[in-house]
Amino acid sequence: MSYNNLSKEELKKELENLQKQYKEIQDKNISLDMSRGKPGLDQLAISMGMLDVLTSESDLKAEDGTDCRNYGVLDGIPEAKRLMADMMDTDPDNVIVCGNSSLNLMYDCIAKSFTHGVLGSTPWGKLDKVKWLCPSPGYDRHFMVTESFGIELITVDLHEDGPDMDQVEELVKDEAVKGIWCIPKYSNPSGVTYSDEVVKRMANLKPAAKDFRIFWDNAYAIHHINNDEANQDKLLDIITECEKAGNPNMVMEFASTSKVTFPGAGIAAMASSKENISAIKDLMKFQTIGFDKLNQLRHVKYFKDFSGMVKHMEKHADLLKPKFEAVLKVLNEELKDLEIAKWTNPNGGYFISLDVMEGCAKKVVAMCKDAGMVLTGAGATFPYGKDPKDSNIRIAPSFASPEDLIEASKILVVCTKIATIEKLLAE
Amino acid sequence: MSYNNLSKEELKKELENLQKQYKEIQDKNISLDMSRGKPGLDQLAISMGMLDVLTSESDLKAEDGTDCRNYGVLDGIPEAKRLMADMMDTDPDNVIVCGNSSLNLMYDCIAKSFTHGVLGSTPWGKLDKVKWLCPSPGYDRHFMVTESFGIELITVDLHEDGPDMDQVEELVKDEAVKGIWCIPKYSNPSGVTYSDEVVKRMANLKPAAKDFRIFWDNAYAIHHINNDEANQDKLLDIITECEKAGNPNMVMEFASTSKVTFPGAGIAAMASSKENISAIKDLMKFQTIGFDKLNQLRHVKYFKDFSGMVKHMEKHADLLKPKFEAVLKVLNEELKDLEIAKWTNPNGGYFISLDVMEGCAKKVVAMCKDAGMVLTGAGATFPYGKDPKDSNIRIAPSFASPEDLIEASKILVVCTKIATIEKLLAE
Repeated sequence: MSYNNLSKEELKKELENLQKQYKEIQDKNISLDMSRGKPGLDQLAISMGMLDVLTSESDLKAEDGTDCRNYGVLDGIPEAKRLMADMMDTDPDNVIVCGNSSLNLMYDCIAKSFTHGVLGSTPWGKLDKVKWLCPSPGYDRHFMVTESFGIELITVDLHEDGPDMDQVEELVKDEAVKGIWCIPKYSNPSGVTYSDEVVKRMANLKPAAKDFRIFWDNAYAIHHINNDEANQDKLLDIITECEKAGNPNMVMEFASTSKVTFPGAGIAAMASSKENISAIKDLMKFQTIGFDKLNQLRHVKYFKDFSGMVKHMEKHADLLKPKFEAVLKVLNEELKDLEIAKWTNPNGGYFISLDVMEGCAKKVVAMCKDAGMVLTGAGATFPYGKDPKDSNIRIAPSFASPEDLIEASKILVVCTKIATIEKLLAE
Repeated sequence: MSYNNLSKEELKKELENLQKQYKEIQDKNISLDMSRGKPGLDQLAISMGMLDVLTSESDLKAEDGTDCRNYGVLDGIPEAKRLMADMMDTDPDNVIVCGNSSLNLMYDCIAKSFTHGVLGSTPWGKLDKVKWLCPSPGYDRHFMVTESFGIELITVDLHEDGPDMDQVEELVKDEAVKGIWCIPKYSNPSGVTYSDEVVKRMANLKPAAKDFRIFWDNAYAIHHINNDEANQDKLLDIITECEKAGNPNMVMEFASTSKVTFPGAGIAAMASSKENISAIKDLMKFQTIGFDKLNQLRHVKYFKDFSGMVKHMEKHADLLKPKFEAVLKVLNEELKDLEIAKWTNPNGGYFISLDVMEGCAKKVVAMCKDAGMVLTGAGATFPYGKDPKDSNIRIAPSFASPEDLIEASKILVVCTKIATIEKLLAE
């Protein structure tokens, strides 16, 4: 029964009961972590074979004859370019394969824009003001990268089909707005995938700043939870759409195998127009002689080709699905009828996004922490770590076991109920 | 007999003879490369065992329990810090272990100085002018990093005991001078190691710019050519010297295993004062979640500890020594008596530095190229690629076989003789 239909007396009684439950939970000295999108040990296990691919007996030449053990090749060996291009649904010529971190690539692209400008534009470090659009809830590390450069973050609403494009189209009329963060597929944390219409409107933007760039972090391009294609999201290729729209240079796409093989020991890539890629290589050639080609080769030899990678992702889905279901089951059973929260049921990615009653998120997260369960800090999914409604909580089910997740979700539910009733009683 | 004692007629006759030899060389359609400090295939072979160290059966935990397969740990696993600290003769607490490229670390340090300043100083991107000291001959990629940021490069003479410290002490009185490139041991290309006095004067600099930094690229810290200790250079630890001098934050040290294991698939590290390291980590935490810990673990498991790495370097020395000797033998036999060139006979590093008669280096390099032999471009060892005397040629003997090196050196000798005689005849 909805909490909205309960009298104050009934709410108080329910609160007393819940506080007892909370005390019991605290006494258990639980230690659970649902804070980060970190693959579980079971997921890491499925990639262990990758460590046997290169041995002292291996041929360590790339298909073009490059000795992957030695210096050389700035932009990745051809077969790794092909693999990562397939992952991003684009052409290998558009791709640079780099080191272990796509976040690092995004950071570097912004850093280079500050020091060297973009295709000849004024370096952003010389400007009085740089602004950035942040569809929210979004990824805290994205927001922190731009914040760390002193960029002003502007919140844009994120709907079920993507960012609010009316807002975006209006905001890019400001020449100080130089970019937008996008996680276009299985967005972190809400799990939404941008609709074709949103992708097209994005590609057709007419920003005042010629050096405006869409940072298209395709982090979950192939990270489905469901192995039946009918329940997998599809995303239009933004690079093609930008080309069609006459804006070929407006997008920078990023991806990595961090959540395909080993986080921190994967390979990352970026993709863009030929002009952008060429300009980036011209700057990058001063930064490094080349990235870890042995790890690129290791990935390609392990997967053989993109279809091998897709099959590998099915194993991840098999492991992730029960984890998501465990959380969703508890939320459905315990919160649905109460009408005090909303949550997502994504087809992919690493998160469930939970919206509790306004003004309650911080309290819920703090109570969970006091009961031994770590969640992403409330507010982290918004610019400057400030959720204007104090409502959004990011749940990361990947690292724990389904059993632990049920326990963790029950704690979350108790805390949500307590915070909500206290709010209702205070009104 | 010295060319200086030959008459014009004798020189002309010698030139005719040499031109015949040169023609014969050209007809052989040789293809040789002595342009870059690239380990030879024999050197790569000795590290192949590293690929068998981590397998699907391995325990992939660091000594502190960190799962090296997953996210986390910004500054390197403890055992990798220890290994790289030993390599740099410093304390693990002073060290951050990163990705595959120390050049990338140097680039990033400069990039961050431009965007964020240094320990609270004005970001260099906001300054009208930034200047950098470049002991020369030096490493072309160093010079290009600073040049790529629009920094003005100032040439400083490099003597047999290190940079001309009188010049350096004078130049750092200019507040626009923000740093100096140093390869303090087995310098690229001259092979010199800085004397204790030079290191101490360096550590005791009193630059006008509070954010002046010594970029101490200890690229060849353990890269001896001789395995007898008596013929190995020793270098004072600059970090200790800077501490003693009350300048603990003035130095940033860099090293990597690129020329220990696999170039491009090694691990790189930086070392500095606790205050610098802490500030760098505070900026770096926005850039990446962490570096490739599996490759860090792979290195540590392969070497066990620093003594294992030292033993490994002895194998490199065994392979490199005959290559250096091959070149030096030809130079000694063919050029010594002529008194037309000087060259180095280093105890370590990757290069022989050859100084031909003023105004002849470009010509020699061009003639070698036309005969099928690639050398580093003449001038590359000086800022802006311009050797004021057009005299210095960098020879990189590591990649070729001793047999090829003899052939290559003979070509080099013929070209040097021709260019010199043409110069003498034109005078």
